[in-house]
Parts: sequence; C-alpha cells; structure tokens
Amino acid sequence: MKILHTSDWHIGRTLNEKSLLEDQEALLTQLLTWLDRERPDILLVAGDIYDRSVPSREALGLVDTVLSEIILRLGIPVLLIGGNHDGRERLAMNGGILEKQGLHIAGNYLPGQEPVTLSDDWGEVCFWSVPFIKPVEYRSLMKLEKPMGYDEMYREITAEITGRMDTSKRNVLVSHGLILGNMADIQTIDDSVRPIEIGGIEYACAEIFEAFDYVALGHLHRPQKALWDKVRYSGSLLKYSFSEWNQKKSVTLVELGEKGALSLEPVSFKPMRDLRVIHGRLEELTALEAYEAEGREDYLKVILEDQERLVNPMDKLRRVYPNVLEMAYEKREKTEAQKSSRRIKERIQDPLKLFEDFYAFVNGEAMQADEQAVITELLETTMEEER
Amino acid sequence: MKILHTSDWHIGRTLNEKSLLEDQEALLTQLLTWLDRERPDILLVAGDIYDRSVPSREALGLVDTVLSEIILRLGIPVLLIGGNHDGRERLAMNGGILEKQGLHIAGNYLPGQEPVTLSDDWGEVCFWSVPFIKPVEYRSLMKLEKPMGYDEMYREITAEITGRMDTSKRNVLVSHGLILGNMADIQTIDDSVRPIEIGGIEYACAEIFEAFDYVALGHLHRPQKALWDKVRYSGSLLKYSFSEWNQKKSVTLVELGEKGALSLEPVSFKPMRDLRVIHGRLEELTALEAYEAEGREDYLKVILEDQERLVNPMDKLRRVYPNVLEMAYEKREKTEAQKSSRRIKERIQDPLKLFEDFYAFVNGEAMQADEQAVITELLETTMEEER
Repeated sequence: MKILHTSDWHIGRTLNEKSLLEDQEALLTQLLTWLDRERPDILLVAGDIYDRSVPSREALGLVDTVLSEIILRLGIPVLLIGGNHDGRERLAMNGGILEKQGLHIAGNYLPGQEPVTLSDDWGEVCFWSVPFIKPVEYRSLMKLEKPMGYDEMYREITAEITGRMDTSKRNVLVSHGLILGNMADIQTIDDSVRPIEIGGIEYACAEIFEAFDYVALGHLHRPQKALWDKVRYSGSLLKYSFSEWNQKKSVTLVELGEKGALSLEPVSFKPMRDLRVIHGRLEELTALEAYEAEGREDYLKVILEDQERLVNPMDKLRRVYPNVLEMAYEKREKTEAQKSSRRIKERIQDPLKLFEDFYAFVNGEAMQADEQAVITELLETTMEEER
Repeated sequence: MKILHTSDWHIGRTLNEKSLLEDQEALLTQLLTWLDRERPDILLVAGDIYDRSVPSREALGLVDTVLSEIILRLGIPVLLIGGNHDGRERLAMNGGILEKQGLHIAGNYLPGQEPVTLSDDWGEVCFWSVPFIKPVEYRSLMKLEKPMGYDEMYREITAEITGRMDTSKRNVLVSHGLILGNMADIQTIDDSVRPIEIGGIEYACAEIFEAFDYVALGHLHRPQKALWDKVRYSGSLLKYSFSEWNQKKSVTLVELGEKGALSLEPVSFKPMRDLRVIHGRLEELTALEAYEAEGREDYLKVILEDQERLVNPMDKLRRVYPNVLEMAYEKREKTEAQKSSRRIKERIQDPLKLFEDFYAFVNGEAMQADEQAVITELLETTMEEER
C-alpha cells in the first residue's frame, strides 16, 4: 500500500506580513501532478492544514479546491487530522457527508474512535487518528483529577488504541504533537513548536509506538525520524520561518508490503521561491552582477556586514531582491539596555524557570516535581497555542 | 417540483442559559420523518442554521447528523445559505466536495455565482442564493465609494441576478435579510432582528423580487409573506424568545408546476415543549390541580399578579413547572429610578435618534439625509450583528 505522508501545510501563513498563498498554491499544484502520476492509496495530512483556527476565505478556497481535485478527480482518499493551528472543533464540519466521498477528518481527539480502514493484497491497513491535544484538554475530556504531563497523556492514548487493535493487521497512527526519540533530541526542535513547550517536559517518547507499523507525525517542520525509521515527521510543506532556512523539505512516500515490510522515500518539490539567509556588505550585495544571481526573487533575510549604519539599505536591497523580508546588521556591539532586554526576554521564554527561581528565593529550597507539574499546567492553560 | 422551505434553525441556541439542543433534535427528527414520507426535490435552509459563528461541538454534531441523513440516506439535496448568525466565511468549508454529494452551501454573497439547477417534467428550476450581507460589506466587496442603504444594495444584487437569468425558466431566490412588503410592515418585525436594524431604513422592499417565481426568505422568525404570497419567510424552527410565544411556527411546502403555477402549504411539527407566557397569582399557579395541567414542562415566563413581593416564588413555581425560565411581577409601580433607566434604554435602542437630538441641540437645526446616512453606516459598522 502506497501512502503519502504530509503535514503542516499551514495554508494562509504569512511571513513578515507577506502572504505565502501563491507559493502554497504552486507547491500544491506540483503535489497534484505527483499524485496523479503516482496514484498512492491514501494521502495523509498530519495536522496544521490551516495556519489559523479562523482561516481566511482565500485559505479555505485553496484547501477546498485542492482537496476536491484529489478526492473527486483523482479519487484518492484523504485522512486529515487537527493540529494546534487548526480550529479543531470546526475542522470536521459536515464530516459525515465528507467521509462518504473519501475525506476523513479527525478534528478533535475522540477516545474509542474507529480507524479508517483500507485494503490491498496483503489485507487491511488500519489508520488511527490522534489529533493535537493538550494534557489539560485530555484531563477534562476524560474527567481525570490528577495532573498529567504530555508523555503520560500520550501513553494513555496510545494504550487505549493498542488495547483494541488487531496486531496481525498493519496499523498506522497519524498524530500531531511533539514526539522525540530521546532527551538529546530536544535540542533539535525548531521554532515551529517552541512557544507551546514549557519547562522541558512537554513531549512524549517515541518508544510508546512500538506496536505500530508506521507513525505519521506532524508538528515539527523539519523532516526527521523519532527513535525508529517507522516513526516520522514528514516536515512542513514549505519553509515557514528563517530558522528553517537550511532545512531540506520533503514529504514521505511510505510503502507497506506484507506485515513488517516497510519502505520509505522522501519526495521533494521545488518551491516557487526559496527562503534563504544571505550575508555580505551592501555594496557587494547590490553590485551589478547581483542582478544575474540565481534566486534573486527568493524570500531573503539579509545580514549586512557593514560596520557603519547605512542610509535606506532596505530600499537599495529591494531593488535587487524584491522579496527581502528581514534585514539585520552583523556583530553590532550591543548596548547595555539591549543586553538587559534580551536577558528578560530569555527568561520570559522559560516561565517555569522564573517560577522555580522565585520559589527557591522565597522558600530557600527547590520546587518539588509535583509542584512543577501544577505550575506547568497552569502556564499551559494560560498560554494560547496559536502565537 | 416540491420544495421544502425552512430557515432559522439556530442550532445551539440557548434561552435564558437553557440549552435547546434536545428540543431542536426532537424537531429535526420529525422533519426527517416528514422528508422520508413526502420526498421533496430539495430542502432549503434560508440562513441561520447555527445560532453562532463558532458553533459548539454538539451543535456541529447535530447538524452533521441531520444533513448526512437527509443527503446520504434520503438522497434529498439541500441548499443552505449563510445568515447573520452563521460564520459565513467558514460555512462553506470543503464546499466543492459537499456539492458533489448534494449539499449546496452559499456561505458568503458572491456576485456572478451560478445557480443550483434541478429539473422536472416542466424543465429546469434555478435556485439563486443571496446570503446575508450588510451594505458596508457589499460596498467593500464591490469597491464602491458611495454610502448605500440596505434597499439600494438589495436592488443592485437582485438586478445583477435578474439581468442574467432566463425568465422562461422557473427561478427561485433564497435569501436572508429584512424584506418588507411596505412601510407599515415595519411594525410587525419581531425581536429576532431588532438589534441590527437602526434608524428605520435598514430593510429592502419586496417589490424588487417580481421576476422570481418564489423567494424563500430567512431572518424573521414568524412565518409570513412579504407583499406577495410568493415572497415568504418560513419562520424559525422553534420559538426562540418569549416575544415569539404566540407565533404559530411552520415550514413551507412549495410546489412549482409549469411556469407561473405555484402552490404553498404550511407544514407544522409538534415541539417537545411549547414556549408560553402564563399569568396568575402564585397561589393559583401552584395549586394542587396545576400539577394536572397540560404543558407543565413547557418553557414558561410567569407573570405574577400578586400585589406583594413573595418569598422565593421561583422555587415554588419550579416545583410545578420545572422549565420556568423567567418570572416577573405585573403592574408593579415603577420607581423614578426605574423609569429613568427605562428611558435611557429606549434611547440607546435608537442610537440614530440620539445623534439627531444631539445634532439638533448643538447646531440648532435638523440633521440632513446624507448626514443621517453617514451616521447610520458608522453605527452599523460598530455594532455586531450577533448579540
């Protein structure tokens, strides 16, 4: 069975106020061509199909057009789950009717939900959906009293599914969340998730997925495996921040043969414009030969190496590079005020640490693990996921 | 061709904080039974299918279940347009795929949109959709400079459609807005629309619909015609406020024969609980025989005729009438403070009048018509429609 695993389309995304809709449409057009040629048995979108819970008319229109093409013209079913950026309550609006046409949407996590099942010569493949869910939502849904971290929640959810699945069949899990192979991987997570992970415990360990034949993940924007090859992030559709400039984007073609046989292959598309960071002095960057350079229309962050501040450098840059979105000076000495503001920012980015320091200052001893858990949950409740 | 015209389902509505979902489900179950028996060619929902732009999971679930039954099991197509209560941008999410199954959704007004077309022995019937739209949205959509009232906007929209429609065929318009037969009718509008109509000019005249064979309207909750029999409000699914207590609810069965032949018939369902206003002294209303009275479980507003204030009358009433939602004393003398607060409230309900009075006070002369139009539009922009 051929499965195309994608995620994090983020349709409607803007980058420094520039709409990326045209770039997204161009990439999805390539995806359509690929689907038409390769005819996989199903397309997975592992969350964050939209960039915001209330998508614009244009974003809704693009997704409607693309999904209609895939489902109605190509006849390829789609399984789509809610990510933290999606309006998960409303994603599955009219789900009963859409299901009939082959568009399977799991907006919110529902315990006990039946899998979507497809068949090939080796029998059935069951697709289980676990959309994005926060521990605080899970506890309220399950009417649990005890505080709970992300890992514990994911263990319970996975156990609920593995408890009733037929392990003689092939089972695929589709989920959206932060899953890591081990502690060391926490260093590798990118800007796409930072705002929602607090205090270093907000991820689950990939080992809980041992019983599945493939786990199609969404949330991290860099294509990567977690622990095993069979637990993968496909990565985002496009580069969505300058922190992703050096990531090689792809989606994943998964082939399931008889039970236990798995092969994976990255599938790359060529974006309309790349997203890059370039360095240099203004004079070099805007020299006559720069007009000939490849990728002049890419989305650029320019880091100027000039030692002196310049007059209207952005205007000069944009004459050569129409899509410069950010500009900065390199190695400029920071004033004390800037340094201090930076220190404050750093601490705000780890509010649990701030609480811990305050606690230690007042009580003369470190916070206990259960107290940390309470603070973590309170912080989580007060922070929106869509920043 | 048999058309069932409904509107204003307001799924997810609450009344004095009481959820009406159970009542709505009961009524829709009757609707399903009726549809199964009578097999109309199409079901129209002329706006406000949901009560709010962000419906609850339960409201979304009920609509999904009911529409799936109608479309997939009964095979009856549905045409649904956006009302002022609906999240019109997102109503048509995945519209392309839904359309294929026979669920036609017009979320927002789009100029130049093609009609939904069905056929019978007498040829085609074209269904044109004009979802709820405010003049300020219309002006922005059409890039118009001039200020514009509701009537002028509706004339333009109707002219756009009649200009390209084939009048030898039968044409049905489905719309959501305030359409009146004549000035005198303004007295008859109910609580369902008051908050959004300001200054007395915010309606359109039904005469603009002469070219249509039938106009299926939504917005007003009382079943009624506007000017001609062929221009009708079906009214809401249920009684949704105590101001509607004496309305007889129904939906409209429309039969179109050959061009020019129209017959109409109200179709009534029995709600689980009625909504009524009852009067009396507490002692009478809670007497032993009251337990035997019919409709004891109805949603009630009780107006007490007792001259003295009583101790915990609501508790006593609820023992007999479990669904008392409101209680008031009749003919209690008003204090000066209450009278003054009432005067202020009355003036706030007509903010244009407030501006006019102020203008006259400051300038010593009455406001001009064009100045009124500017104020009206500003007021409209600042008031939400969903209160």
